[in-house]
Amino acid sequence: MAKQYVVGIDIGGQTSKIGVVDARGDVLYQSAIRTDTFGSDADAYISALAEAVKTCVLQAGMTMEDIRGIGVGAPNGNYYTGVVAFAPNLSWAAESAVPLAEKLSAACEGVPVSLTNDANAAAVGEMAYGAARGMKNFIMITLGTGVGSGIVVDGKVLYGHDGFAGELGHTCVERHNGRTCNCGKTGCLEAYCSAIGIARTAREWLAASGQPTPLRDLNNITSKDIYDAAKDGDNFALRLFDYTGTLLGQSFADFVAFSAPEAIVLFGGLARAKEFLYEPMKRAMEENLLKIWKGKVKIVFSQLKESDAAILGASALAWEL
Amino acid sequence: MAKQYVVGIDIGGQTSKIGVVDARGDVLYQSAIRTDTFGSDADAYISALAEAVKTCVLQAGMTMEDIRGIGVGAPNGNYYTGVVAFAPNLSWAAESAVPLAEKLSAACEGVPVSLTNDANAAAVGEMAYGAARGMKNFIMITLGTGVGSGIVVDGKVLYGHDGFAGELGHTCVERHNGRTCNCGKTGCLEAYCSAIGIARTAREWLAASGQPTPLRDLNNITSKDIYDAAKDGDNFALRLFDYTGTLLGQSFADFVAFSAPEAIVLFGGLARAKEFLYEPMKRAMEENLLKIWKGKVKIVFSQLKESDAAILGASALAWEL
Repeated sequence: MAKQYVVGIDIGGQTSKIGVVDARGDVLYQSAIRTDTFGSDADAYISALAEAVKTCVLQAGMTMEDIRGIGVGAPNGNYYTGVVAFAPNLSWAAESAVPLAEKLSAACEGVPVSLTNDANAAAVGEMAYGAARGMKNFIMITLGTGVGSGIVVDGKVLYGHDGFAGELGHTCVERHNGRTCNCGKTGCLEAYCSAIGIARTAREWLAASGQPTPLRDLNNITSKDIYDAAKDGDNFALRLFDYTGTLLGQSFADFVAFSAPEAIVLFGGLARAKEFLYEPMKRAMEENLLKIWKGKVKIVFSQLKESDAAILGASALAWEL
Repeated sequence: MAKQYVVGIDIGGQTSKIGVVDARGDVLYQSAIRTDTFGSDADAYISALAEAVKTCVLQAGMTMEDIRGIGVGAPNGNYYTGVVAFAPNLSWAAESAVPLAEKLSAACEGVPVSLTNDANAAAVGEMAYGAARGMKNFIMITLGTGVGSGIVVDGKVLYGHDGFAGELGHTCVERHNGRTCNCGKTGCLEAYCSAIGIARTAREWLAASGQPTPLRDLNNITSKDIYDAAKDGDNFALRLFDYTGTLLGQSFADFVAFSAPEAIVLFGGLARAKEFLYEPMKRAMEENLLKIWKGKVKIVFSQLKESDAAILGASALAWEL
């Protein structure tokens, strides 16, 4: 009988979430370990992760023999090589290249491991269980601390020549005097339209204008503060979302010209502000689309619970093993 | 015995070129008919084209039974539907949707017909016979009257949800006060970096500056005039190529962030100015690439004779039939 279960792992900078998942996408058992307590010792992290996987499988009432594969989503995770390399937010992979897939498989009784980056994992999860079910061509945009993307073409994640395709957060939205991005370039979409980007816009605008807003009284503005102010009807905060949504929509039009997707699917913390982002995004996208696409490309929001989505996405990858 | 020959057809605004091609990519016989003498009568054009195909096959010493398939590259040709629709430069398809693949097949004794747009055909030709041999991930950019593109992912042309993917000439290079493009949008790559675009830049700069240049004496500047002036060492013309190449290189960096290609392959009339375009293109691309791609993505020029390339590209499509 075919093995009926997979394990999904979402590796974040602080926490690694582990879940045992069945073919219907139900998370049967989940747990988590810290990611950030191993310094630069990748082997110690991988050992701890493997122990947590085995415990999780036992708690779900199974043995490792029932597990078909392990899917892992991690920042800078490379699908082709199984390596996590130079990921600034992972202390044990910040300065080195870690063959995570190979080592985790060896530590988990040889169960095969498939690795990809976190945005690609989210795209796979959305296709298997979420808003992109039945779609073969769509673009996943994750609006979190940064802006990530996973591009699906003909039902498969686009990996490109080297496995790193889909870095749409680092396409340019401002050629003239653009903001410096964490990546070192200027004018990147991520520098404007991430949670951090919208907070930067707020600080710039506060310095440049005298418009009254409750945000002016805060020491350290976050995207959550801006969201709360917009909910209260603050015009300054509403304008921030209008600007951010407009930049996103303009970029989406260029992405559509590339891969002609059925939909753009949005996920992540900042995407929760959909009541403020949707209208300017949609308007700016439509204004910048070629005629053949006007009115034809959907903008939709993730349908997965955020706590489950990353695990489900990573686990969906494991079914292909 | 398998059928050993295919027919490639390149439909342009003025001329339709037809060639009989063998498996090695040798054009055994070729001919051409006018595209623009049929008014809005698509059926008359298709009849004439079918007659020309049959004559071409006879002249090559074969019958239609030796032909495995017919590949057609045409502006706005849709691979999924076999339809040419609303192509401004084709009088018989400017205002309507013409089921070209189906009708041509019926008029050619049922030989199967595969249709795609001209830039995709060029990409397929380059992959089968030219500069992209052995590559599975590359982006073809055609620099002609307009700017076209064909994107190859995992050895296949990216068509997207509707068959229209790869309109990179209509991604935005100038958000602020950008030029109006033929497509109706503003700031498109095509409005700056096509043969017509560089001539527009020349006229703008002539009006704005007093720099002496032989181009100032011409009534109607073409990209060929600019190329000739640059060859003669004219600084104004050299600056035009530097600017155009820089815009192209900046855009290429964004395209790389999308599909992580092994190379950008350039084709078309303006690409002949490679000695003036290459350096600024390469420099601007490198400056705007993420670190993971710096020094790793090639910019190469078509290796196909321009007269054969379009026929070869279209014919390569027919081998898949």
